[in-house]
Amino acid sequence: MSVGYVETQRVVLATPDDPLPLSSGRTLGHVEVAYETYGELSAARDNAVVVCHALTGDAHAAGHHGDEARRGWWDNIIGPGRPLDTDRFFVVCANLLGGCQGTTGPSSIDPETGRPYGMDFPLLSVSDMVGAHRRLVRHLGIARVHSVVGGSLGGMQALSWALEAPDEVGSAVVVAASSRLSAQNIAFSAVAREAIMRDPDFAGGAYYGSGRSPQTGLAVARMMAHITYLSEAAMSTKFGRRFQDSETPRFGFGVDFQVESYLKHQGESFLSRFDALSYLYLSRALDYYDPFSEPDAAGQLRRTAEAGTRALVLSFDSDWRFDTSHSVRIVRRLEHAGVPVTFREVASTAGHDSFLLPVPEYHAIVAAFLAVR
Amino acid sequence: MSVGYVETQRVVLATPDDPLPLSSGRTLGHVEVAYETYGELSAARDNAVVVCHALTGDAHAAGHHGDEARRGWWDNIIGPGRPLDTDRFFVVCANLLGGCQGTTGPSSIDPETGRPYGMDFPLLSVSDMVGAHRRLVRHLGIARVHSVVGGSLGGMQALSWALEAPDEVGSAVVVAASSRLSAQNIAFSAVAREAIMRDPDFAGGAYYGSGRSPQTGLAVARMMAHITYLSEAAMSTKFGRRFQDSETPRFGFGVDFQVESYLKHQGESFLSRFDALSYLYLSRALDYYDPFSEPDAAGQLRRTAEAGTRALVLSFDSDWRFDTSHSVRIVRRLEHAGVPVTFREVASTAGHDSFLLPVPEYHAIVAAFLAVR
Repeated sequence: MSVGYVETQRVVLATPDDPLPLSSGRTLGHVEVAYETYGELSAARDNAVVVCHALTGDAHAAGHHGDEARRGWWDNIIGPGRPLDTDRFFVVCANLLGGCQGTTGPSSIDPETGRPYGMDFPLLSVSDMVGAHRRLVRHLGIARVHSVVGGSLGGMQALSWALEAPDEVGSAVVVAASSRLSAQNIAFSAVAREAIMRDPDFAGGAYYGSGRSPQTGLAVARMMAHITYLSEAAMSTKFGRRFQDSETPRFGFGVDFQVESYLKHQGESFLSRFDALSYLYLSRALDYYDPFSEPDAAGQLRRTAEAGTRALVLSFDSDWRFDTSHSVRIVRRLEHAGVPVTFREVASTAGHDSFLLPVPEYHAIVAAFLAVR
Repeated sequence: MSVGYVETQRVVLATPDDPLPLSSGRTLGHVEVAYETYGELSAARDNAVVVCHALTGDAHAAGHHGDEARRGWWDNIIGPGRPLDTDRFFVVCANLLGGCQGTTGPSSIDPETGRPYGMDFPLLSVSDMVGAHRRLVRHLGIARVHSVVGGSLGGMQALSWALEAPDEVGSAVVVAASSRLSAQNIAFSAVAREAIMRDPDFAGGAYYGSGRSPQTGLAVARMMAHITYLSEAAMSTKFGRRFQDSETPRFGFGVDFQVESYLKHQGESFLSRFDALSYLYLSRALDYYDPFSEPDAAGQLRRTAEAGTRALVLSFDSDWRFDTSHSVRIVRRLEHAGVPVTFREVASTAGHDSFLLPVPEYHAIVAAFLAVR
C-alpha cells in the first residue's frame, strides 16, 4: 500500500519582524517553505517523523500529485505498513532552505530589491537548513518530533538537528551521510562548481531573467556527481560495455556505450528541475559541514546525551561517496559522548544511491528503530 | 645520476606513397613522429627499450632541454643505473599518434586541405598508435626491441604491441593498465568529453584558427580526471580539509580548501600544453580498447606465446582508476595462452599516479624484469 494523492503546501516562516538568523550572522527576512505531510498527527502530537532530503531532492517524498505513475522520491519507505508507517506516524518532508522547489533559495525574490537574490543570497550552512525546518515543525504545533530521518545531506540535517536541538528530537536516522567531507569529496564538489561557474551563461551568477542559464555546466556537474552515486559494480552490472541500440560499436564521438546514454539523460533531465545556484549553495554547505569541529560541539554532544536522543547511523558497503568510515566517525563521536547509537553497515551493490532504494535489510532496520517509542 | 641534455627529434614515417593504415580502414598519408632517445644503441641493435606514454604525456620522458629543473615526465626511472638503465639500454620515447606535442594529430595540417584536420582526423585505436611507433623503431634500424614499457594508456600500447607484433618485442611491461575499461571508467571519460564538446568555444570541433578553444571544458575534464588519478588516502594526506593560505574558512565560492587550489592549478596548467581534440581522440581510443575481444585475439595470443615474448603486469593497490582486477584480467588471458607472465600488485598510497612515481618496490621489479636478456 502506498500514500495516495497529496498536495505540496507552502508557509511563510520568517518575516522582517521575525527574520531567520543564519550561521553567517546574516538573516533572511522572508522565508517560505514548501512541504508535504503524510498520515495524521496524533492528539498528543508525538508521532511526527521529519524526512530531510538530499542535495537535489524536494518536498514530494511520497504519494502523487494526480499522476499515480509519478510518485515521490522516497515513496518506497513511506506509507501504510512501510518503515515510515503512515498508519502510525505523521510524516513531514520539506524542501530545504537554499533549494529551488518551493522553499526560499537564490532564485527567490529578494524583498529588499524586488529581484531574485542570485549570488546576493547568503551562504548557508546545514544548521541554517535545519533552522528553517525547526520553524516548520513549530508551525505544525509539534514541540518534539519522534524522529528526524535522512540520507546523504538529509542525514547530515538529521545529525545536526539532534546535536543542536536535542529536546526537539526523539531520535535521528542518519543514512549514508558524513560529518565531514574528505578531500576527494570536496574535489568532486569543486569540479562540479567550476563547471557551472565557468559556463559563460552563468554570467557571474546574474543569469536570472537573462533567458539563459548555465545548462552546460549544470549538466556536466550532474553527470559527474551521478558517477559517484553509483558503485563500480552496479555500473558494470547495469551497463557493462554494452552499446546503445546496437550490438557493435559505431566508432565515433556520439553516444555509443549505454552508460554514456544513461549519463547524458541524467544530465539533461536534471536541467528542467534544478537551478544552478541552488546547486552551488547546497554543495558548498556540504563542503563546509563539520559539526564536531564547531566551538560548542562538546556541549552539544553532552546535551544530546542528556536529552536521551537516540541515533541510528547506517552505511552501505558499496557506497564510495560516503563510505562506512564516514559513518563510523559519527558513531564514535556520539558513543564517546554517551548518546545511544545503533550502527549498521548494510550490504548493497547500489552504492550511495542505496539510501533511496528498498534494500530489505536497510528498511527492516529503519522500521525497527522507529518502532521504539 | 640522470640523463643530461637531450633534443626532441622529428621524423616523417608515412607519406602519400607509403601511408599509415588505420584500424578504421582509413589511412594517414603524412605522419610525423616526435621522439627522444637516451643511451646508445648497441652494435647488435638488441638493447632498445621503448617507452609508451599515457594519455597526456609526451616524448620528453627523461633528461632536460637546457633547463635542468624541467626534466622529463619519467626521469625517475630512466637514466644510468636506473631501472631503464641508459648504461645498458637504448631508450626511445615518442609522442603518440593523435597527440599534440610533435606527432601528427587532429591539430596537424591535413595535406589534402592545407588546414588542420580538426574532427576530420580519423578515429584512432591503440593499434594505430602502436603502428606509428613500430615504424619509428624500424626507422631506427631495430628489428626487435628488448622491451616495450608503459603505464596506463602506455601499458595498453605495450600489451597491444606484444599481441600484434610479438616477433618485434622481447617483452612488455604493462603498468597500471587495463585491457578493457569498465562502465565507470567510460563514464568518467564520457563526462570529460561532454564538458569539452558542450563548451561553446569547441565550435563543433572547428576551433583551430578561431583564436578560441574549449578551455573551460578542457580544464574541467582535466580536473575531474585528476581526481581519478589520486587515491582518496593520498588526497586526504596531501590536502585533508586544510584551507589555502588560512587557518580558517573564508566561507564563499572562491578557492578556499587546498584541494580546490590544487585542482584549479592542474586544470589551468594543462591548457597551455594540451589540445582538446587530442584529448577527445585519445580518450575515445581508451574507451574502445578491448584487444582480447578482437576477432584474431586467439591467434595473436598463440603467436605471442610462440614468439617467447614475456610480460610483466603490475598494478598498485590504491589505484581505483584501473584497479588490480584490470591487471588480473590481462594476466589470466596471457597465462591461459601460455605467454610467460610475471604479475605483481605493489603497495602504494598514491593511486593511479603511482606509475609515475619512484615507488621502490615497483622500480626494483621493473629493473629485475628488464635485466633478463
